[in-house]
Amino acid sequence: MKFKNLQEENINEVINKANILLEALPYIQHFNRRIIIIKYGGSCMVDEELKNSVIKDVVLLKLVGFKPIIVHGGGKDISSWVGKFGNEPKFINGLRYTDGFTMEVVEMVLNKINKSLVQKVEKLGSKAIGISGKDGGLLKVKKKQMGNEDLGYVGEIVEVNNKILYDLLEKDSLPIVCPVGYDDNYDTYNINADDVALNIAKSLKVNKLTFLTDVEGLAKDLNDKNSIISELSVEEARNLIKENIVGGGMLPKINNCIDAIENGVESVHILDGRLKHSLLLEIFTDQGIGTVLKA
Amino acid sequence: MKFKNLQEENINEVINKANILLEALPYIQHFNRRIIIIKYGGSCMVDEELKNSVIKDVVLLKLVGFKPIIVHGGGKDISSWVGKFGNEPKFINGLRYTDGFTMEVVEMVLNKINKSLVQKVEKLGSKAIGISGKDGGLLKVKKKQMGNEDLGYVGEIVEVNNKILYDLLEKDSLPIVCPVGYDDNYDTYNINADDVALNIAKSLKVNKLTFLTDVEGLAKDLNDKNSIISELSVEEARNLIKENIVGGGMLPKINNCIDAIENGVESVHILDGRLKHSLLLEIFTDQGIGTVLKA
Amino acid sequence: MKFKNLQEENINEVINKANILLEALPYIQHFNRRIIIIKYGGSCMVDEELKNSVIKDVVLLKLVGFKPIIVHGGGKDISSWVGKFGNEPKFINGLRYTDGFTMEVVEMVLNKINKSLVQKVEKLGSKAIGISGKDGGLLKVKKKQMGNEDLGYVGEIVEVNNKILYDLLEKDSLPIVCPVGYDDNYDTYNINADDVALNIAKSLKVNKLTFLTDVEGLAKDLNDKNSIISELSVEEARNLIKENIVGGGMLPKINNCIDAIENGVESVHILDGRLKHSLLLEIFTDQGIGTVLKA
Amino acid sequence: MKFKNLQEENINEVINKANILLEALPYIQHFNRRIIIIKYGGSCMVDEELKNSVIKDVVLLKLVGFKPIIVHGGGKDISSWVGKFGNEPKFINGLRYTDGFTMEVVEMVLNKINKSLVQKVEKLGSKAIGISGKDGGLLKVKKKQMGNEDLGYVGEIVEVNNKILYDLLEKDSLPIVCPVGYDDNYDTYNINADDVALNIAKSLKVNKLTFLTDVEGLAKDLNDKNSIISELSVEEARNLIKENIVGGGMLPKINNCIDAIENGVESVHILDGRLKHSLLLEIFTDQGIGTVLKA
Amino acid sequence: MKFKNLQEENINEVINKANILLEALPYIQHFNRRIIIIKYGGSCMVDEELKNSVIKDVVLLKLVGFKPIIVHGGGKDISSWVGKFGNEPKFINGLRYTDGFTMEVVEMVLNKINKSLVQKVEKLGSKAIGISGKDGGLLKVKKKQMGNEDLGYVGEIVEVNNKILYDLLEKDSLPIVCPVGYDDNYDTYNINADDVALNIAKSLKVNKLTFLTDVEGLAKDLNDKNSIISELSVEEARNLIKENIVGGGMLPKINNCIDAIENGVESVHILDGRLKHSLLLEIFTDQGIGTVLKA
Amino acid sequence: MKFKNLQEENINEVINKANILLEALPYIQHFNRRIIIIKYGGSCMVDEELKNSVIKDVVLLKLVGFKPIIVHGGGKDISSWVGKFGNEPKFINGLRYTDGFTMEVVEMVLNKINKSLVQKVEKLGSKAIGISGKDGGLLKVKKKQMGNEDLGYVGEIVEVNNKILYDLLEKDSLPIVCPVGYDDNYDTYNINADDVALNIAKSLKVNKLTFLTDVEGLAKDLNDKNSIISELSVEEARNLIKENIVGGGMLPKINNCIDAIENGVESVHILDGRLKHSLLLEIFTDQGIGTVLKA
Repeated sequence: MKFKNLQEENINEVINKANILLEALPYIQHFNRRIIIIKYGGSCMVDEELKNSVIKDVVLLKLVGFKPIIVHGGGKDISSWVGKFGNEPKFINGLRYTDGFTMEVVEMVLNKINKSLVQKVEKLGSKAIGISGKDGGLLKVKKKQMGNEDLGYVGEIVEVNNKILYDLLEKDSLPIVCPVGYDDNYDTYNINADDVALNIAKSLKVNKLTFLTDVEGLAKDLNDKNSIISELSVEEARNLIKENIVGGGMLPKINNCIDAIENGVESVHILDGRLKHSLLLEIFTDQGIGTVLKA
Repeated sequence: MKFKNLQEENINEVINKANILLEALPYIQHFNRRIIIIKYGGSCMVDEELKNSVIKDVVLLKLVGFKPIIVHGGGKDISSWVGKFGNEPKFINGLRYTDGFTMEVVEMVLNKINKSLVQKVEKLGSKAIGISGKDGGLLKVKKKQMGNEDLGYVGEIVEVNNKILYDLLEKDSLPIVCPVGYDDNYDTYNINADDVALNIAKSLKVNKLTFLTDVEGLAKDLNDKNSIISELSVEEARNLIKENIVGGGMLPKINNCIDAIENGVESVHILDGRLKHSLLLEIFTDQGIGTVLKA
Repeated sequence: MKFKNLQEENINEVINKANILLEALPYIQHFNRRIIIIKYGGSCMVDEELKNSVIKDVVLLKLVGFKPIIVHGGGKDISSWVGKFGNEPKFINGLRYTDGFTMEVVEMVLNKINKSLVQKVEKLGSKAIGISGKDGGLLKVKKKQMGNEDLGYVGEIVEVNNKILYDLLEKDSLPIVCPVGYDDNYDTYNINADDVALNIAKSLKVNKLTFLTDVEGLAKDLNDKNSIISELSVEEARNLIKENIVGGGMLPKINNCIDAIENGVESVHILDGRLKHSLLLEIFTDQGIGTVLKA
Repeated sequence: MKFKNLQEENINEVINKANILLEALPYIQHFNRRIIIIKYGGSCMVDEELKNSVIKDVVLLKLVGFKPIIVHGGGKDISSWVGKFGNEPKFINGLRYTDGFTMEVVEMVLNKINKSLVQKVEKLGSKAIGISGKDGGLLKVKKKQMGNEDLGYVGEIVEVNNKILYDLLEKDSLPIVCPVGYDDNYDTYNINADDVALNIAKSLKVNKLTFLTDVEGLAKDLNDKNSIISELSVEEARNLIKENIVGGGMLPKINNCIDAIENGVESVHILDGRLKHSLLLEIFTDQGIGTVLKA
Repeated sequence: MKFKNLQEENINEVINKANILLEALPYIQHFNRRIIIIKYGGSCMVDEELKNSVIKDVVLLKLVGFKPIIVHGGGKDISSWVGKFGNEPKFINGLRYTDGFTMEVVEMVLNKINKSLVQKVEKLGSKAIGISGKDGGLLKVKKKQMGNEDLGYVGEIVEVNNKILYDLLEKDSLPIVCPVGYDDNYDTYNINADDVALNIAKSLKVNKLTFLTDVEGLAKDLNDKNSIISELSVEEARNLIKENIVGGGMLPKINNCIDAIENGVESVHILDGRLKHSLLLEIFTDQGIGTVLKA
Repeated sequence: MKFKNLQEENINEVINKANILLEALPYIQHFNRRIIIIKYGGSCMVDEELKNSVIKDVVLLKLVGFKPIIVHGGGKDISSWVGKFGNEPKFINGLRYTDGFTMEVVEMVLNKINKSLVQKVEKLGSKAIGISGKDGGLLKVKKKQMGNEDLGYVGEIVEVNNKILYDLLEKDSLPIVCPVGYDDNYDTYNINADDVALNIAKSLKVNKLTFLTDVEGLAKDLNDKNSIISELSVEEARNLIKENIVGGGMLPKINNCIDAIENGVESVHILDGRLKHSLLLEIFTDQGIGTVLKA
């Protein structure tokens, strides 16, 4: 037999808890049985605690009725493993040059990361299946053209065969996708993970596409934290590009966002993956987090 | 275009929010697709704000994957309406004496309350259907025997025909049940709402049966708040009865709890319905609220 | 061991029985798995024997493969209960004026009638569920405008959310609907039961909409029984209105019939609810009963 | 526009009709979705009007929710066709001797009758499929042993593979079965149609097995119409056999009835197929027709 | 314990076997779950070994995932049985004149053949159901007009009600269809089996319609085996007709082929039924067999 | 238009083809919708042509109605990749010692092989999904105990959670499993691929478990090809072990076979993976290939 000892302060704390749970109510309602894509990369793939925090968030989303799909990249792990073989990673215009041997290493590392994420989900009592773009013929690619540069086995998505994703979701699994696919000759290619997330989101016409990144959001002035934009429209985004305000690594991300919205995705989010539970906070609280792009 | 203005304090607050949401994770997991019965009566049926708070909680439970069923009584509304006809309510051993005319009024009032709860659920965007024990032949009763006293149309449940509840839950409706049934002669009887909740819980072998009451929980000494028991076993409950520690209005409640546990219900809860969101706090927080009885 | 004693006359009687059963064959065939709406009101709601006769008919229809839905009003019971509170019912242009308090009484009485019909169906071994327009958000209304008159809580249907009816029919229940709904503010309104039957019929595009009334059918001359029309077309109905032949309480009924036919209902019937089993006779015999309106 | 002309007598006649329809209510209820086997043979297979009457009855049963299966024999048609080839039919102990050529003719005639019954059902707007014991491997037989007599291709059922019947019933077809099967060598055999009906009834554990025969029922004294038994128990039936009261062509039928009851069939009926609609009258009227055997 | 004794030659033979099995791979893939109609008639219905060979082929097709439907005629059996009654078969323009009595015999013989094919399929462990155009109302016909000639009960298809075929295929049965149907008066008619196959193929828009015939294929010169055409287009077929190269019994077949292709059938085949397993060879080998007509 | 040129020899060859296809008939029938496990390792994983031949065979099995599951090891690829990092593979009692770093490499290599097999299946137009024992929690392991030796991350299966396999098979995917799992601490372990195949076979109680090996079968005398056993019983196998006739690498395989049979697997096969299409030949030809163990 246990006894209770509730003081006044406790009561208030407890009521505060209830209110936070209830703040989530309309969001849970809105996304019930809806698919949400989470692109997971950057710092939050390095720090073990952040990794766990992201997975915990996704499992919670799944439990309260969302149908999440994780897309992940390989980040620093790839360079590190390629390095172990005495090869220096080579980049051309920010894209890794991928020779045949490197492609083998890249695929191996991506699959390893993939299964380690599966493992984390299973540890939390939920069911995940890790696939690459090869499984069920999910991603068909062609060799990426980059002016005169040869990038090697870097692919560009030409077709998404999403049946396998529907199959897995129907069986209540959480699909975790790594960015590898094959072309018409069944040669293996590395794909940019952002592109994978974008193309799957477009193919499934999801409600929400979320990029967990290493920035707090889109900023007008990269050096001024107060210039971080919390919400903008496609039109406003185009203007920022025209006025050269967005540039650098942000440019392709913004272009992806615009592409998604114009192809049926309801909202695209750029979140700070370095902030613990940023995903949860973005979805379940009224103030939100990071930058959201809408039609 | 909107800009963000996140101060340090905000960040902490926001992280705190995330933690509270995550505290709910294992409970959501555990109760996924499980039926939970909520007996709703007493003060929380009087105060409009409390009413809304209870319904909000139940809708949240439904959204995160539970399958709740509400059972409600009539409380003061019944006496008030009976009074409008110039009749004084008559009680025998704490049970209302119910003549034919009063039974008509009681049924009308209970149905009115029933539909007003439906309305509240619908208002929150969820789907409810209000039924009485007559619909689908849910509750078969017989006249309650009480020594030599004649209580009139007060019934005792002899059979629960739960098919209708499964039908409604399968169609994703929230059933709201009022405590009226009929006997073999198809005469209408009033039933104690606690008994209805108990018998439905036993028939469905639910995981959780919850009574929202006007006390903070079961107390060893009614005058000492610090004597409120937070958890006890069936055996401990029996001892409290033997030692005459539990008595008064609490005795039938405790007996109900014991009956439930012995018939396959996993845990029974006595919560303070006067505390806003007590239902939510009991289920989603580690410390819990009120008294829980387990095997 | 029992012995038979069949005389010649018996044989003939018995063969006559068979022929009557067989006369029903093509009608049973035609309405197999089709929805039929029965508006039930007037005298046949007062006389207990008539009540039972109507319910018996509907249960038979259900058993032989129809999917009936009953819509009922409150009739004299409402005035009687309102009277018990010392209030005189107030009518404006034939529509009851409904203040807040009266609305509460009206809803209570309608629910009471509703559940008593459920009980009658269950007594015959069939499964019924009584709902109001609130359950599952079935009927959305707005305040009825009547020139300059304020009718109080009298609603006009603006939307029928028929999912709940399909759910109940799929689960082999007989839905019994009472004419109460709510508006955008979730205020409760009384609705004309004929309007409820009509709007549900239009929403479901049913084959047959049947009004059980207190007249033998539509008559050219109200005082001449031989002027009762057994069948007429929409065009003929319009002419009767133009020539002022139809008027009084019949006018809204005829307009409802025309509205139904023009919105996909196959036939609308005005039957004499005071004649026992008129529903059965209309449907299963070649000569029919009452007045039928067709395209 | 048509007018009505209902006299007093009409009204009474019409009410009488309704009562007869309602008398059928509990029977329709009881047999809802239950399988009933109708063995159809003797005179009612000769007279065209009786044939139509039987089929009409069965189609009505199907429409009001029963799941009937017809089993038919060949009767006089077989002898007549065998005769056309100059062969005299040969009987041994009341069983037709069947040589190879005769078996071919028998099968052809049975299939012809089978399809003509299908045609009659289709003509009434219902869906039938005619099968023999060969289709879907329904009936496995072995050569019938009859003391020292060789009966040729006369089979005895050793296995009923009822999957095909469930398949057809599930697809809402009316199965019509003719009594032909094959043995382990896939040789074709003629089977007694009563045996087919009995064995299918036992295999499906149906509620009702009905034999349409050329007698009014089981009689204690074949010459005394007043000695026809309307109802008897298995025990009483055994006594009648022991006391040699039942004999001749009735004996195997009674033994079949006892066998059926002891293997899970609820009631077995011997009806007079020469009386139009005897099937309907037996099922839908309180007084019944013919002889019924129950546990 | 058994020992192996594999010589070099054996190994080669065994590898050859594997290659033949693998040659079938793409065809099995292409026809997975697709319906294929096999018209079965002529010599392969006479010779018992050929009969078995055809059925074996069809059962194999079913097992590897095709959904075959057999349509058969009566061939010489009909003339032979009609002859047994002393009647000479009468032909008008190559079409049998069918009086009422002959129609009865024809139907009987066709049903007998039908059930014997069912038996052969069952013997191979697969499930078949034999139906005629009467079952489930599959084939509606009208009396065939042939200039001034009266052909008696010879029918022309006016409607294919293919629901029954879908039902049987869904239940994993192999439908075997004999060419008999009825007209609006429910009179029975004989139908040309090629027409039945053609019309069912058109109604189901099948991929492959196959005629097993008594010729090796379509020949430009009937006396020159080397003039057999292996593949031709609709246009080429039309030209052959225009140039009077195709004539005699081949003309209606070619017209059927053209009709089929123009109504959605993918390919039509004329195979030599006298060659054992021609069906299998046509479908599973790269070189094919007989003549194929494609768009 | 194409013409045919079929000589006598061709005809014979063509008929021979048909007979080989038909020889497969009973096997296809027997294994319809049955699960078959193929353990794939050794030489046939090295030679590209053999790899393709195995995959082609499995795809054919899938197409003709089997439900195959492939389990593969890593073979020489693992040693080769481990070597690339300057580490010498270390073996203890024939089991690889696996330190943490090696485990990472092993998992990467296995996943790479896994996805390359997926790719080969997809190339043949069929649908595959590559999983490890981590996905869906398929394989739970514990650290393998080997006397006093520490083998590092070498696991022993303690639980097979086969739901994921049923899910994938139901969705018509071909599961390809690599032998990696995790223990209670969610640490990753390498598992013997034969053990994985065996345990999955036992868990699913499959009909056929097939090991593709580098020997022609089980031999009494390893140097005498004529001593290869084609079939033996569990009892005979036990005797061979007792008499020390089986030893070396064969011993664990034989023990696996016995374990499988005793746990519900119908037959276990040891095939020569170096012989092209040995899988097909074993299953589809009467003489079979390799060694089979049965109860």
